[in-house]
Amino acid sequence: MSMQPAFLIKKKRDGQELTTNEISYLINGYTKGEIPDYQMSAWLMAVFFRGMSRRETADLTRAMVRSGERCDLSDIPGIKVDKHSTGGVGDKTTLVLAPLVAAAGVPVAKMSGRGLGHTGGTIDKLESIPGFRCALTIEEMKRQVRTIGLAVVSQTGNLTPADKLLYSLRDVTATVDCVPLIAASVMSKKIASGADAVLLDVKTGSGAFMKEPEDALLLARTMVEIGSDNGVRTTALVTNMDEPLGHSIGNALEVSEAVTALRDPRAVPDLVELCLVLGSQMLVLGERAPDAASARHILEEILESGLALAKLREWIGAQGGDPTFIDRDVPLSRSVTQVPVQAFRDGYVTRIDTETVGRAALVLGAGRVRKEDTVDPRVGVSIRKKQGAFVRRGDDLGVVYSAGRGTDEAVRLLAQAYQLEERPVDPEPLVYYRVESDGVVSSGPGHNSDRNP
Amino acid sequence: MSMQPAFLIKKKRDGQELTTNEISYLINGYTKGEIPDYQMSAWLMAVFFRGMSRRETADLTRAMVRSGERCDLSDIPGIKVDKHSTGGVGDKTTLVLAPLVAAAGVPVAKMSGRGLGHTGGTIDKLESIPGFRCALTIEEMKRQVRTIGLAVVSQTGNLTPADKLLYSLRDVTATVDCVPLIAASVMSKKIASGADAVLLDVKTGSGAFMKEPEDALLLARTMVEIGSDNGVRTTALVTNMDEPLGHSIGNALEVSEAVTALRDPRAVPDLVELCLVLGSQMLVLGERAPDAASARHILEEILESGLALAKLREWIGAQGGDPTFIDRDVPLSRSVTQVPVQAFRDGYVTRIDTETVGRAALVLGAGRVRKEDTVDPRVGVSIRKKQGAFVRRGDDLGVVYSAGRGTDEAVRLLAQAYQLEERPVDPEPLVYYRVESDGVVSSGPGHNSDRNP
Repeated sequence: MSMQPAFLIKKKRDGQELTTNEISYLINGYTKGEIPDYQMSAWLMAVFFRGMSRRETADLTRAMVRSGERCDLSDIPGIKVDKHSTGGVGDKTTLVLAPLVAAAGVPVAKMSGRGLGHTGGTIDKLESIPGFRCALTIEEMKRQVRTIGLAVVSQTGNLTPADKLLYSLRDVTATVDCVPLIAASVMSKKIASGADAVLLDVKTGSGAFMKEPEDALLLARTMVEIGSDNGVRTTALVTNMDEPLGHSIGNALEVSEAVTALRDPRAVPDLVELCLVLGSQMLVLGERAPDAASARHILEEILESGLALAKLREWIGAQGGDPTFIDRDVPLSRSVTQVPVQAFRDGYVTRIDTETVGRAALVLGAGRVRKEDTVDPRVGVSIRKKQGAFVRRGDDLGVVYSAGRGTDEAVRLLAQAYQLEERPVDPEPLVYYRVESDGVVSSGPGHNSDRNP
Repeated sequence: MSMQPAFLIKKKRDGQELTTNEISYLINGYTKGEIPDYQMSAWLMAVFFRGMSRRETADLTRAMVRSGERCDLSDIPGIKVDKHSTGGVGDKTTLVLAPLVAAAGVPVAKMSGRGLGHTGGTIDKLESIPGFRCALTIEEMKRQVRTIGLAVVSQTGNLTPADKLLYSLRDVTATVDCVPLIAASVMSKKIASGADAVLLDVKTGSGAFMKEPEDALLLARTMVEIGSDNGVRTTALVTNMDEPLGHSIGNALEVSEAVTALRDPRAVPDLVELCLVLGSQMLVLGERAPDAASARHILEEILESGLALAKLREWIGAQGGDPTFIDRDVPLSRSVTQVPVQAFRDGYVTRIDTETVGRAALVLGAGRVRKEDTVDPRVGVSIRKKQGAFVRRGDDLGVVYSAGRGTDEAVRLLAQAYQLEERPVDPEPLVYYRVESDGVVSSGPGHNSDRNP
């Protein structure tokens, strides 16, 4: 009797904790189709209002991992460190980080998604490189990681079917924005994909799902706890997404900017700084460095020496792409029209509404609203002026790259996103918080000797 | 876009009020099968947590009424007053009230259900009378009311299909116990069945859904508001269900007790008192009396004179039953075994856990757990001692009427239900509150001149 779904819905609804067995029964039953959508959606809404304890959240994640296969990467030597970003506008960090930390000796065996959003996911971005192939089998992926230390592939096999089913249901029942459900969804995929350790980049600001740093911190802590409770060492950084990262939003544009970051780091300082901060944590998790400060030193040398760019070239070749692609200056198609967007007055850029910039990219066709949508790799937005810059009326704020669709709306959105004022405002920090695998929270990126300040 | 179900779920989830059109869109779409169960159940759970405003509740009720046919009783002369009880243990008031108020000139055209519970519904009780036929068409029902002033029939036609669908869904998604949803469900059926006015008997106590009088009052007020907002004059009484009503629980047993109440009112004082209180309000609603006190006077005379018993006899005959049935002393089948339950000590009856008494009747087969269950009209429980009575060890507390199934458990439950103590406790009132159609709440039944105390 106690295992009736209606009883478990009522239990959660009335604020009681579900047992490990009860959560496992719900997730298994739902995955097998024995518990119907209408009971699961009522339970999810009860979870939205009542939340989940730390133990419940860990149990939910474990049940979701167990709903499908779990990738075994144990035959790849070293500590496999995965990285996940909760998503932002112009976030091409994986394209920079993967070759950077691989060049530093941390093996990267990463599965990535396409996803919905203002631009495509990492897989879409990589597929804008001519010939690049993401649909590797797990064996192919592992062989490549053993050879060159690096592979990024589209999700393969029957990993976390429960997460796919639950996500589809949450999407149409207003139960997406719920911290334990978001955290369990992310972490179940990371755990199932076989990572030994995970670095989480939890975005906050006008271009992120979590608008406030404190909400992002809660999500970060929840995910770190899940990792710890499931034997996967996890560190999280809460980072600024109050303006687009770098200058480019759009799939091919972002690949191009990632190449620039590896070739000429000073040209994209905010992107490179974030990659150094994230990469340092990955080296610490991968035990290639004792602390973030020495890890950063290693990564700066690799970047300066050109080793990271060489690793990118090797990677593209290994996955069937044309490595000379990265040496070409303007990889943009001639079928794309560039429309500049000008400042309407003199002033300092005090705010760029990042969500609105993302929507400009979306209306041009750079991203997906529905799963079935196709992404146009050519289109996007480039911003020329970032927060704090002084502009004169008529200066270019940014450029819209259009293939014919949505041009006028994108121009209007990009202009709207900019706020120009008499006086500049203080910039927000790049990193708000760091949550270590033992749950300790500190402010800032932790560049210096961390544990013993 | 604003009419996407997911958006309406989110709106309610976030505590905003839905518009009339939005509620109508949800209920219509759900009834037509265009909005799936999983979205409706998520919305219902959001309603559970966020509640509904008075306007939303009235709109929900109206949308449920409009989902099907509405019975038109306007060609029956007089004000048709319906009565609804939220359900208790041993509640046979309809069997007494219907002939009583019909004899006083208030036309009774009532649709009733079978329902789930410790015993069957009014229809099941009536069908334990040999030959009695409840499946009348609306035309047959109206003809009978015009002829003898009284008909009680099983629900017919396509009334409130939305309520049926919603109730089935709520039953399996832990969204039953939610005041606006309960109130809308009850009132939509009353409004659709064509009543001009409604008297609600909202039960409270150990044998009722609402254990506390204040919770019952909230439900009562909500239903009165719905009636008023939909042009149906509605009065509610919050009445005591802290011990079984009368002595009998079980379908044939309750019919027999109802006959007794009409023939020899002093034999079942609590049942008769409640019927006089409820009936008085019905006469006021039906404009047969200016106030409850004069209405009560009329009803007492009708009861004393035997007119109500004669009306019962006429009614049974009109619906195909055997009217001589009511003159037989023991209408119980010989296939039923009577097992007495004795007091285990001396003492005063301070409490009868009425839910437990109901469960005793249920395990004997008197009621339904699932819709598909059949009800055994012969079985049930009779209690001999009510609250305040002094008993000696070995005295009969009650009797179990069994047809073979559940006898031992029923005996155990009936014994458990009784609490015997050294000293008696003060009895609770029969009527806690009265909510008039204009929303005014007063304590007690309002026997005396009401509006001008």
